Amino acid sequence: MVLLIQCSDKVGLVASIAGLLQQQNLNIVSMREHVDATQGRFYTRIEINGVTDSTLLSQNLAAELPSDAVINVNPNPTKRITVLVTKEYHCLSDILIRNHFNTLGATVACVIGNHAVLGEICARFDIPFYHISHEGITKDVFEEKLQQTLANYDFDFIVLAKFMRILSPTFIEHYPLKVINIHHSFLPAFIGANPYKQAYERGVKLIGATAHYVTNNLDEGPIIAQQIISVNHSYTTGDMVKSGKEIETAVLAKALQLVLEDKVLVFQNKTVVFD
Amino acid sequence: MVLLIQCSDKVGLVASIAGLLQQQNLNIVSMREHVDATQGRFYTRIEINGVTDSTLLSQNLAAELPSDAVINVNPNPTKRITVLVTKEYHCLSDILIRNHFNTLGATVACVIGNHAVLGEICARFDIPFYHISHEGITKDVFEEKLQQTLANYDFDFIVLAKFMRILSPTFIEHYPLKVINIHHSFLPAFIGANPYKQAYERGVKLIGATAHYVTNNLDEGPIIAQQIISVNHSYTTGDMVKSGKEIETAVLAKALQLVLEDKVLVFQNKTVVFD
Amino acid sequence: MVLLIQCSDKVGLVASIAGLLQQQNLNIVSMREHVDATQGRFYTRIEINGVTDSTLLSQNLAAELPSDAVINVNPNPTKRITVLVTKEYHCLSDILIRNHFNTLGATVACVIGNHAVLGEICARFDIPFYHISHEGITKDVFEEKLQQTLANYDFDFIVLAKFMRILSPTFIEHYPLKVINIHHSFLPAFIGANPYKQAYERGVKLIGATAHYVTNNLDEGPIIAQQIISVNHSYTTGDMVKSGKEIETAVLAKALQLVLEDKVLVFQNKTVVFD
Amino acid sequence: MVLLIQCSDKVGLVASIAGLLQQQNLNIVSMREHVDATQGRFYTRIEINGVTDSTLLSQNLAAELPSDAVINVNPNPTKRITVLVTKEYHCLSDILIRNHFNTLGATVACVIGNHAVLGEICARFDIPFYHISHEGITKDVFEEKLQQTLANYDFDFIVLAKFMRILSPTFIEHYPLKVINIHHSFLPAFIGANPYKQAYERGVKLIGATAHYVTNNLDEGPIIAQQIISVNHSYTTGDMVKSGKEIETAVLAKALQLVLEDKVLVFQNKTVVFD
Repeated sequence: MVLLIQCSDKVGLVASIAGLLQQQNLNIVSMREHVDATQGRFYTRIEINGVTDSTLLSQNLAAELPSDAVINVNPNPTKRITVLVTKEYHCLSDILIRNHFNTLGATVACVIGNHAVLGEICARFDIPFYHISHEGITKDVFEEKLQQTLANYDFDFIVLAKFMRILSPTFIEHYPLKVINIHHSFLPAFIGANPYKQAYERGVKLIGATAHYVTNNLDEGPIIAQQIISVNHSYTTGDMVKSGKEIETAVLAKALQLVLEDKVLVFQNKTVVFD
Repeated sequence: MVLLIQCSDKVGLVASIAGLLQQQNLNIVSMREHVDATQGRFYTRIEINGVTDSTLLSQNLAAELPSDAVINVNPNPTKRITVLVTKEYHCLSDILIRNHFNTLGATVACVIGNHAVLGEICARFDIPFYHISHEGITKDVFEEKLQQTLANYDFDFIVLAKFMRILSPTFIEHYPLKVINIHHSFLPAFIGANPYKQAYERGVKLIGATAHYVTNNLDEGPIIAQQIISVNHSYTTGDMVKSGKEIETAVLAKALQLVLEDKVLVFQNKTVVFD
Repeated sequence: MVLLIQCSDKVGLVASIAGLLQQQNLNIVSMREHVDATQGRFYTRIEINGVTDSTLLSQNLAAELPSDAVINVNPNPTKRITVLVTKEYHCLSDILIRNHFNTLGATVACVIGNHAVLGEICARFDIPFYHISHEGITKDVFEEKLQQTLANYDFDFIVLAKFMRILSPTFIEHYPLKVINIHHSFLPAFIGANPYKQAYERGVKLIGATAHYVTNNLDEGPIIAQQIISVNHSYTTGDMVKSGKEIETAVLAKALQLVLEDKVLVFQNKTVVFD
Repeated sequence: MVLLIQCSDKVGLVASIAGLLQQQNLNIVSMREHVDATQGRFYTRIEINGVTDSTLLSQNLAAELPSDAVINVNPNPTKRITVLVTKEYHCLSDILIRNHFNTLGATVACVIGNHAVLGEICARFDIPFYHISHEGITKDVFEEKLQQTLANYDFDFIVLAKFMRILSPTFIEHYPLKVINIHHSFLPAFIGANPYKQAYERGVKLIGATAHYVTNNLDEGPIIAQQIISVNHSYTTGDMVKSGKEIETAVLAKALQLVLEDKVLVFQNKTVVFD
């Protein structure tokens, strides 16, 4: 059982929380705690052994903690995700494989593509795929169609697995801190289109990928995970794209693992990752 | 102020400790906690803001915690180290530079070399250097001489910065968990002599270095830090030695930082590193 | 078009080879060359633009080069592999996905498992799967069955994708430098069984994986690629196994890419990798 | 002996060059070659065993190669550098240590600081240090003073080892491809001032450093080397600065090694690094 808490900092928070847990004879298996001194904000993640009433524990915690506390007792342990894609297969396939062998930490509810091409791989894994084209319609209409399809499913997160359309702030607001994107560069380098082309032209020696929550501003949301790989002068833009796919797959997998194991807290534009 | 505790695990340890701190109006700035379920052992590192009587806090903690608790309240904040060397300059120089600019996290009390060559660099930094040759005498006599010189200094750790003599268990027992070594391989690969030659002959694609506490068994003590770098077919043994020096310097620096910032706890043959 | 050559070294080898290519108006797009001074051995990989008769070029090269030259002009550009597996899905699935989307650099001819469980994922990708159990029969008989099945296919390499049986030297000799294995440790550390358990007990801070050609001696063949990831005190053996799978998948994928793009030459127990 | 050549690409370049070397009975120990297909440009680095007349070989090569060829036969094997610093000691100290033990690959001719504080460490190594303050004078006058001091020394490169003044294009033009800078970020992320503060505010999970040639545009010159290290939510800006120093030191050391071993060719805004 996992406990995620963030609130403004004050003396005695750990004692209050640990005291409550002890009263209920709950053993702390693992505890991570962080105080951001600049913000005066307290974050903790606690893994507990033992059985308790989650709602009651939440209420008891709320009674003892500052009024701005965000308390999450035992976040949904059987999570579900939806996946939005375009044409590139690598991130989606990795998710489908892990889902198939029950190592994703979540169940894939459905996949939506603005192109049809990835329907074939979804079919091989018996995962519902919806082709919702963005062509010939306004962004508003396109996003309304996405929402209508998504509305048919229960899910905890929308994963943008190389989904190459920019979603509007209006769309994102419907799913606060529920949309996770893999961006094909080491943000904040190469924001926007064609990052590998930009990287090639700049002659960089490393390329990267960034998984982040999507907020209103393009490529500006809280970063969950980043990784890089070495490149050199012999890499064409195409080679960088190819190598980039490997790191994109790895970073998105890592970020999903962290999020799905309830190891990420978000405050304003930053994450606290208890990995 | 830092608090390091390890003891056998039971329900309520965090509550006990945090309760005591709260009673003294001490704020927990940072807390790391680990329970090793296999061993049933609890480890914590707590950074505290506020002033308190260390001895009293230790006694109070001891009264509440299991009898096997190892409690370290506010470990010596002005640490001192001695350094043992042979002929290679890279690790020693890195330590001398950090010491000179007050970023080592400790003060270098003295340097002892079984060869004389590194006396010159110590002199440039006004650090006492003692040449104690191992030649023409037994290991017992050699180690007795080392001990006699060391006895003139107060120190918290002995750093073997490429000291190429094997110290006897008898010597090590005088300084339990106080001797830190940098080994020029990714242990447990290539234990013993000439690891780079072994690595070359095996055709490995990565070489590494390992910083560890020295215990009775050669190259078998608790590992503090390890890093690797890529090599390839074009590396001769000499090239591996050269590249290895870079990683040896970096790993020893990292391990010393962790140890000197009181982030490492040791139990049996393993470390818990709260980095 | 790719040209791979190795031979004993002498003055003028590059001139001879480049001269021959120039006579046929072939442009060198990329050239890598290595002389191992210890062995007195010359290695080169040349990418050429232009059309030529491979057999004739081979003959012409052989006429100019030392008699021990191993010349490979335009190695099979449409390679095929077979895959041997046991129960773990991660490496096989990665290969099947890349094969499905034509980015493997080879075609998967068939998969053989000594357990049946991975037949299901092969079926989803329409790849022939053969269950050949090792149980209740001698190793000789088991390997004979493997050979009989393999004999029905043309292939360039046998990939041991977490195949947990040790193959006899007799079997391996049938497929010289054609068998590629992923070993779940940073060789030569933790040779043999249960490397993650060994790593856990040693308290290492990094774990790795090694892809290598299989020769007569277990885990002793020429290394193609190695990578590591960080672990810490909080990792159980199970956590190491889980993290290890990620790195195993990545290292095997990297090694296969190198081999299938004809970037690896082997001499005695080492590789020259022109990556 | 090293040979560096770049020119526009055409068929037969390797044959021409290798033929010339063979005529003089020079053995190619190591050869790296790269053709940038986009630019139609050929680059090579050749290590040769044997003795020859450099000037004559240059002339012979020029006669055979395209007229735009840049030919560098046996670049100055006893290189000298000057170092410009401000207040931070880490990069300078690393250079001084390597210089002192003859492993830098060059000799430090002198150090110039716009602050006086690093004179002390230079004095310890008997290296001339000049304090040229930028305060109370125009940039023109400041740079004139720098040039006057530099004019007293022969040197191959000016190393900006955390020199915190922006040099004018006019100054840089005096030393084309001779000025090497370490920038404290993973370019092109966080161009300009306070990159670690920018990184902290963006909540990145990796920070980096970039060594590059300085050209007219700030932070825009050809990149030689880049590296990164992981950071997390617990890092303050100050912690990032501290960790950044480690990576800055390592990247500058690596870049200097590459440049001083004649492994870097530059064309327009990019490097070809034969490492």
